[in-house]
Amino acid sequence: MSRLDRSTAEALDAADELARFRDRFVIADPDLVYLDGNSLGRPSRAALERLRQVAEDEWAVGLVRSWEEWIGWPTQVGDRVGAAVLGAGPGQVVVSDSTSVNLYKLAAAALELRPGRSVMVCLDDEFPTDRYLLQGLAAARGGEVRVVGVDPSEGLQPDQLVDALDERVAVVLLSLVSYRSGALLDLERITRLVHDAGAVALWDLSHAVGSVPIGLDAAGVDLAAGCTYKHLNGGPGSPAFLYVRRDLLDRARPPIWGWWGHRDPFAMGPDHEPAPGIERFLVGTAPIPSLALVDEGVALVAEAGIEAVRAKSRALTSWFVELADARLAPLGFVLASPRDPDRRGGHVSLRHDEAWAVTRALVERARVVPDFRTPDRIRFGVSALSTTFTEVWDAVDRLVGVVERGEHRAVDASGRRVT
Amino acid sequence: MSRLDRSTAEALDAADELARFRDRFVIADPDLVYLDGNSLGRPSRAALERLRQVAEDEWAVGLVRSWEEWIGWPTQVGDRVGAAVLGAGPGQVVVSDSTSVNLYKLAAAALELRPGRSVMVCLDDEFPTDRYLLQGLAAARGGEVRVVGVDPSEGLQPDQLVDALDERVAVVLLSLVSYRSGALLDLERITRLVHDAGAVALWDLSHAVGSVPIGLDAAGVDLAAGCTYKHLNGGPGSPAFLYVRRDLLDRARPPIWGWWGHRDPFAMGPDHEPAPGIERFLVGTAPIPSLALVDEGVALVAEAGIEAVRAKSRALTSWFVELADARLAPLGFVLASPRDPDRRGGHVSLRHDEAWAVTRALVERARVVPDFRTPDRIRFGVSALSTTFTEVWDAVDRLVGVVERGEHRAVDASGRRVT
Repeated sequence: MSRLDRSTAEALDAADELARFRDRFVIADPDLVYLDGNSLGRPSRAALERLRQVAEDEWAVGLVRSWEEWIGWPTQVGDRVGAAVLGAGPGQVVVSDSTSVNLYKLAAAALELRPGRSVMVCLDDEFPTDRYLLQGLAAARGGEVRVVGVDPSEGLQPDQLVDALDERVAVVLLSLVSYRSGALLDLERITRLVHDAGAVALWDLSHAVGSVPIGLDAAGVDLAAGCTYKHLNGGPGSPAFLYVRRDLLDRARPPIWGWWGHRDPFAMGPDHEPAPGIERFLVGTAPIPSLALVDEGVALVAEAGIEAVRAKSRALTSWFVELADARLAPLGFVLASPRDPDRRGGHVSLRHDEAWAVTRALVERARVVPDFRTPDRIRFGVSALSTTFTEVWDAVDRLVGVVERGEHRAVDASGRRVT
Repeated sequence: MSRLDRSTAEALDAADELARFRDRFVIADPDLVYLDGNSLGRPSRAALERLRQVAEDEWAVGLVRSWEEWIGWPTQVGDRVGAAVLGAGPGQVVVSDSTSVNLYKLAAAALELRPGRSVMVCLDDEFPTDRYLLQGLAAARGGEVRVVGVDPSEGLQPDQLVDALDERVAVVLLSLVSYRSGALLDLERITRLVHDAGAVALWDLSHAVGSVPIGLDAAGVDLAAGCTYKHLNGGPGSPAFLYVRRDLLDRARPPIWGWWGHRDPFAMGPDHEPAPGIERFLVGTAPIPSLALVDEGVALVAEAGIEAVRAKSRALTSWFVELADARLAPLGFVLASPRDPDRRGGHVSLRHDEAWAVTRALVERARVVPDFRTPDRIRFGVSALSTTFTEVWDAVDRLVGVVERGEHRAVDASGRRVT
């Protein structure tokens, strides 16, 4: 018996203190190995029940009267997200709008916080929407986007950032966990470097939240936003969260002056007066069904505890890397994520010359769902509350089989990528 | 027997060709008279079933693979909204983001379509978010908001608009149906006046869509947006639609450059290249559960036909006005909507000195749900597919009872308005 046998995975599962959480989710097909919860997390049973309740009781029965409750959800769910997974005290987080819209609001607010500075810094390996949003702001306001080139597998090195900072930089937008490599940055250290240069630190937490512990208040982060449909399991297109540090709330203001951000929306007064608190970053009516799903998703992570989630997530990705080294490297797969688990979030990428075809074959022939990332990466995400060590073993084993049998050369790999 | 007896209402219901649609909705409490479907429409049975299907089948079972279908929904549902209720040919409508965010995108795009012009025109009686959004744009870009004062019951007179237009005006933002008075404007005539002044016509269709026929293409409208949770029954916070006339799509561009607006989002290229079509106005991931609800809501209106919907809606509000003249005017209620049904959308407002207390008493004591609008209006909305003539009669009758018994002086009217 070898360390790399399936029995090792079974032993790891037997010793897993979070194993009991798997039953809280809907596992429609136990034979499907789902390693894309970092793109779209699974629904919990409680979330589906809550959705039914919102639709059939609160909406159908309560009708418009239910707004007396719903109206508070963007801030109430925001506070729960803040407490459970962001390290943020109350009154600094709202949940509404998409991640892209929220990052736009925050980047524009950052520019206004630094009058006289107009450079916005991001990475060449940043998730595209982040870079595009800054380009749009630069076009509208005469600013400049400074792009820092980084190693696409290892991510940003702090020295590279220091070289890019000067007195013209207004804001630095970075992902805590890189969408492709999974590289995990040092939130506190990088935020300090940004502050040393007099700039605003704006963090995209999409791939980090619900997977790694985050201490926004402790790190002195200025602004942050991120997805709720990945490790928080809020469902397809669930609204994003947005964080503004408390002491900035009297000065930071979004560019979109909607009525939900007004001090007294129902006074319907002639002029926009921003709400004194984080509500000022709301814009329009929040998507209530999806907010309920986010609430349930966060509750489950809170129940497990983010430290326990991180410990298991780290063990799962380390187990994947160990298996990949032994069984996949000989087949042409190259690790495209940091090898040090302290520098890695909840997913691991492998580079392969036929990555897209291999991904298609895994999904269509082997009942394994990873994700593809252009041009040549296969991304394997682990969901600490529902992924098992045995699933990780099965994924690697099936991947070996797919490649050894040449199944990736038999699939139609012409289709357009949509996730 | 008099024309104003309940039996007249019953006869009107018996002759109503749309009466059969009421059973398609969830009517949890048949004794509740719901006259606030223009704030939050009722769910249809089909919509609740579709929501269950999206969550329990497409999300829980399909997981991320369902994005192959979902990815097309913002434009597909957009096309259906366009065909059924906007008079818009395909490829000009998307459904995503809130109404406020969409109006922001469109107003900013309008400014860019008219370089050298910086005045934005709206009404003093406009729904607040519209005015606030323009104020935010003016603050960020050095423009000016010109506010036209109108009669709060009769709405805009075309001459008033002409007086406000000159060669500095870039965009005019107007509601086709006023949120408070229900005043219905002449889309074609007003759009022509705006064009005569060289400005962009941007319409907020929130209170009109699904209630009155709209011919965007025929009227030559430039830009439009509106709610789907009112007469389209998309549920609380469902995403808004957005229309850009086809021939503007090569020039109009939103200020928020998100990845969903990119020509090829999954290429994840370095620079933002706007999609050639209406997709360029998308930003981030669309809220899928609510999009499914919108799709079902629109399908029901399409099945009934918007002309039939309008005919019944008009008959319902006229019946309400007839009853109000006879029974409510003597109690101090004053019509605060156009008397001419051709100039009125799907709701009627009454002015009353104790409007807020009367609204509370109606909801708490009389099982009638209208809406209050500051400072002294009670707004009664009709939903042609689910409201009956008998409900309208009952609402007026119960309102008479509430006031005659002085119940509005016995309720707690201190609460904060939240809808």
